[in-house]
Amino acid sequence: MDKDALVDYEYPDLDPLPSKIEVEIIPPCDPTADDRLYHICITAISLVVMLILAILARRTKVGDRQKGLPGLLSPVNFLDHTQHKGLAVAVFGVLLCKLWGLIISPDPLPFTTGTVNKQHWVILGVFYYPALYYPLLACGTLHNKVGYVLGSLLSWTHFGVLVWQKIDCPKTPLIYKHYSLFSSLPQIACLAFLSFQYPLLLFKGLKGTEKNNATEDLSSSYYKDYVKKMLKKKPAKISTSSKETPKLPQRIIDAVKSYIYTPEEAFRFPLKLAISGVVSFIALYQVGLLLISTVVPVLQTARAGVDGDIANVLAGFRIVLSPDKNEVVRIVVYYMWCVEVCYISAMTLSTLVNLAMLMRSMVLHRSNLKGLYRGDIYNVYNCQRSIRASRPALVCWMGYTSFTAAHIFIGMIVQTMVFFLCLLIAVFLIIIPVLHRQNLILFKIMWSMWPFWLMILLAVLIQHIAGRFCFIKKTAGTRDLDNRGNLFLLTYLLFPVNVLIGVLLALWRMVITALFNIVHMGRLDISLLNRNVEAFDPAYRCYAHYLKIEVSQSHPVMKAFCGMLLQSMSKESNAAQRSRDLEEGIQLVLQEKKLYKVSSAKRACRHWQLLYTLVNNPSLVGTRKHFQRPTTESFLNGSLNRSVEKGSKKEAATKEAEAAANN
Amino acid sequence: MDKDALVDYEYPDLDPLPSKIEVEIIPPCDPTADDRLYHICITAISLVVMLILAILARRTKVGDRQKGLPGLLSPVNFLDHTQHKGLAVAVFGVLLCKLWGLIISPDPLPFTTGTVNKQHWVILGVFYYPALYYPLLACGTLHNKVGYVLGSLLSWTHFGVLVWQKIDCPKTPLIYKHYSLFSSLPQIACLAFLSFQYPLLLFKGLKGTEKNNATEDLSSSYYKDYVKKMLKKKPAKISTSSKETPKLPQRIIDAVKSYIYTPEEAFRFPLKLAISGVVSFIALYQVGLLLISTVVPVLQTARAGVDGDIANVLAGFRIVLSPDKNEVVRIVVYYMWCVEVCYISAMTLSTLVNLAMLMRSMVLHRSNLKGLYRGDIYNVYNCQRSIRASRPALVCWMGYTSFTAAHIFIGMIVQTMVFFLCLLIAVFLIIIPVLHRQNLILFKIMWSMWPFWLMILLAVLIQHIAGRFCFIKKTAGTRDLDNRGNLFLLTYLLFPVNVLIGVLLALWRMVITALFNIVHMGRLDISLLNRNVEAFDPAYRCYAHYLKIEVSQSHPVMKAFCGMLLQSMSKESNAAQRSRDLEEGIQLVLQEKKLYKVSSAKRACRHWQLLYTLVNNPSLVGTRKHFQRPTTESFLNGSLNRSVEKGSKKEAATKEAEAAANN
Repeated sequence: MDKDALVDYEYPDLDPLPSKIEVEIIPPCDPTADDRLYHICITAISLVVMLILAILARRTKVGDRQKGLPGLLSPVNFLDHTQHKGLAVAVFGVLLCKLWGLIISPDPLPFTTGTVNKQHWVILGVFYYPALYYPLLACGTLHNKVGYVLGSLLSWTHFGVLVWQKIDCPKTPLIYKHYSLFSSLPQIACLAFLSFQYPLLLFKGLKGTEKNNATEDLSSSYYKDYVKKMLKKKPAKISTSSKETPKLPQRIIDAVKSYIYTPEEAFRFPLKLAISGVVSFIALYQVGLLLISTVVPVLQTARAGVDGDIANVLAGFRIVLSPDKNEVVRIVVYYMWCVEVCYISAMTLSTLVNLAMLMRSMVLHRSNLKGLYRGDIYNVYNCQRSIRASRPALVCWMGYTSFTAAHIFIGMIVQTMVFFLCLLIAVFLIIIPVLHRQNLILFKIMWSMWPFWLMILLAVLIQHIAGRFCFIKKTAGTRDLDNRGNLFLLTYLLFPVNVLIGVLLALWRMVITALFNIVHMGRLDISLLNRNVEAFDPAYRCYAHYLKIEVSQSHPVMKAFCGMLLQSMSKESNAAQRSRDLEEGIQLVLQEKKLYKVSSAKRACRHWQLLYTLVNNPSLVGTRKHFQRPTTESFLNGSLNRSVEKGSKKEAATKEAEAAANN
Repeated sequence: MDKDALVDYEYPDLDPLPSKIEVEIIPPCDPTADDRLYHICITAISLVVMLILAILARRTKVGDRQKGLPGLLSPVNFLDHTQHKGLAVAVFGVLLCKLWGLIISPDPLPFTTGTVNKQHWVILGVFYYPALYYPLLACGTLHNKVGYVLGSLLSWTHFGVLVWQKIDCPKTPLIYKHYSLFSSLPQIACLAFLSFQYPLLLFKGLKGTEKNNATEDLSSSYYKDYVKKMLKKKPAKISTSSKETPKLPQRIIDAVKSYIYTPEEAFRFPLKLAISGVVSFIALYQVGLLLISTVVPVLQTARAGVDGDIANVLAGFRIVLSPDKNEVVRIVVYYMWCVEVCYISAMTLSTLVNLAMLMRSMVLHRSNLKGLYRGDIYNVYNCQRSIRASRPALVCWMGYTSFTAAHIFIGMIVQTMVFFLCLLIAVFLIIIPVLHRQNLILFKIMWSMWPFWLMILLAVLIQHIAGRFCFIKKTAGTRDLDNRGNLFLLTYLLFPVNVLIGVLLALWRMVITALFNIVHMGRLDISLLNRNVEAFDPAYRCYAHYLKIEVSQSHPVMKAFCGMLLQSMSKESNAAQRSRDLEEGIQLVLQEKKLYKVSSAKRACRHWQLLYTLVNNPSLVGTRKHFQRPTTESFLNGSLNRSVEKGSKKEAATKEAEAAANN
């Protein structure tokens, strides 16, 4: 299918004599490391690695009564802030590149050369690749030296074979000679990272400096730092609050700053967001590469193939650019060069826009997460919602990372197309006519309409000036209307002119709305719809649900609290209990605490900690046992009710905490 | 220009032999009442009427020391809720029709037949017509029998001549034979209304039942009714608040209800909104008529002209629909009929959508106005703003009515185009293939992709089912995650499939966003942009500013209060003061009250009324003298601060009122 498209592209309509163009024919290249053989071997090796890991896990389980096979089956904890994110991010990056290759390449899987039905193989590949790269993740799960060794070997193999293949066959006939090479660069980078990371982990394991990941999350100092920073009193900003509204330069600087992500000390992204960021970046690279390599070489080939015959062809369509044939060729080549420049500019612009959007998203993710941690639900969602796990929320949470990549993909294609069209119009209707001082059609039309523009301008000016000087008077600090009679008269007389101004305004509205939506197409964290129907935007709905799960399940304060309780408990109870993993830790604290006998002083202290935490984090209340959900309807009746509700919610939290303390 | 377009349209490309079609040739028609002569006469008559009115106004002024020429120069009080709205609405309707004719017709003004430069005459007309119809408004201003007689005569003349012309020349060569007639129907209706209204006013004036309009506004019982209803305690809705969330049928019914406008007793629209509504409706009619009459007759002519030659023409493009020529004609005619049906359906759909939007807008206008009267600024604007007159607000207020009409115009054109395209695609790719069981290209493609759809469906189902039954557990009233290990594993394995689902989601997002924005294009009362950048939508910005002026200048409670004070004052002071008009009344109350000596008991009573009013209507505080604007920055820091601020604002209002009371 793609091959046909390629052939179609190679000989565009403008050039009727394809035989004259020297197309560089790239022979199909068979790398020394045959892809088919390699995949069969690596699948077998992966299977063996998984078996070894499973045996190892069983042994570890017998020894420590913890982890083991279940741990092996969930190598990545997506609800973790402190875990070293590198391994998971790299594997997801490789997976995305493989998926991309699967869809682009005519041979989706290496086992089949002459594919009759590509579709079935794509579907198979969609499930095959996650399984193939699974051992790369699993090797790091056990925190075992053998696991690290296996991981190193596996990642070296993957990396080595890929690099070898690319050195063997740098050129492929697919799309563009170097496309395949460039397309695999992110994959090579991710595999290189893994090949470097596993030996590093092994080295740390040998030196004994590596912490045990199982308890690392809860006992990490990050959560405590977060709580400490949160409880610290902020210095009152007197200087800024005294200003009424910031001035224009300040506002512009603020707007620019809000697009630049600067890391904060006491905040780390959840793993899923980190993966989403990297995956988005890779998607951006792949789409950009595809857009460039499908179109630009074709345009260049077509440009190189333009010769004197083009004048005859154009004359057939009654277009005579110049009586001289060479001049015609020069003009056509120049126009084609312009189209090429427009296309590359549009692509670059779209990439830059998406990069800026990615940065902005990160800023917004952070502020949204922090807001929700604070319980500031209304500001984030623009309505009151219960922050807890539900079926749709879970489904959205599972798909979030993938959806980000897909949206970047579609967004970038749409953006490039639209920008390309706009640039073409701008170049051929404005820039080239101005440069050559001919075909100034647009300017002539505009110029012939000067009385109209003058009238519009004057009408707008009159209204603004009259509004400023005649109809508003300032008395004793307040502004009020003046000269009402004349105001009404002017309003009546300018009614028809204002209709014409309204038409221009409506066109401007259309342009600005379309542009905004196209630019923000790839972002899930804002809704493209009006604030009252935000939830109808599927992407934003997904993001909102994603945040719910993230906040309800990995609230840093909750984790800090659980960690603290686990620590104090472990001082008394036996050491074996200490290393129970995160979920079990939470279970332990919230439901089984009655089983452990602790001194009443400790207990009281703990209850007071709970009280304090809950009061400062009302969003945690929802996850408490026996929690009765407050009526949500009262939230909807205006800001007054909201504030009342807010108060009552806080009271509810306090009561809840007090009740817990009295137990 | 339009004539050329017409010629182009009459002979579409499909029909290469225009000579065979019998085009009904409409001779240029000269009505007995020559437009040129009529305009010269009516301009002169209008001038005379204005002179008579001016002399009358001077005499009235000498008598009553009020109204007079200034009153004549502002015949319509846009900031009035109680005034009889008919006159102003009708004149604005006529004006819009005239503007429409001005732009559509090749001869914009009747003074010129062979127009060299249409544009200049359009600009002249834009200012000529408001002046021409001005006397129709001004005649009603003086509330004088002579004025009513003149108004009746003038409106009868306008109405009579227009009807006469249309009876004389029902067919014109412009666009479509009956276009001109249909296009003038709203104008005829408006003039008929005026012709009926002026005699009615005269009759009332003779019978003495007509109230004096000057004091009518403030002394109207409407404002008092509004205040009474506002102060009435609402019965607590216990039954609805006990429900947590309404069920789906209830929610659908509510959604439908929110699109149906039902008049409320104690609420009337401001005049400007009433005018906007009628003007929008007329714009809708005119655009619909234009869209139908430019395209449908042309399509019908083309359809009638299809004969056997079309088969040869199509064969020239290598399209062979059938070996039989008659069969080809039948197929082509059938397809053209389909296109026609699609077009008319699209136009009808667009009209219906816009009518629904108009209704919905009215519902929203009312709730927004009521919200702002209550001081519920945050809910309406989604941010804290000061509700008072400013230059941009005034400019937007002046243009609001015109902008509504212009947006309906552009919105409807865009909608018709988009709906037409969608319907064409639906008909030619889905309905016709299904009906004729051939060319099922789309279905074949879809069907050949069944494994893909099955995979997507299964992946979505698996995630939902697993989310429902495996990963969420309910314990003691709360829902929490369960089986985290498997959840993470599933998330990892389904990553590539979810990317594909994400692509579909992104496409759906694009469709839904575009559709929403196109459907709501004609509405100014909602922003088409994301909630954080709402103000960048020029139409919504205009609406927001319009509301500011409307609320700050015609707050019903303020008017009721001013009316009350004027009444109590008039009992003591002389009767001449009584009839001072609205603005002067407000001035009187707010600034000159010290000039009048009233008993201290009355004064105290008045101050207590002020206090009570201000406490219940915090939005009025801004218009008070010596009012210090509260710092707005603290509004921005989340809902907690907002509620605090709200409290303090209320306190400020109370203090302000108390201070006033202590004076």
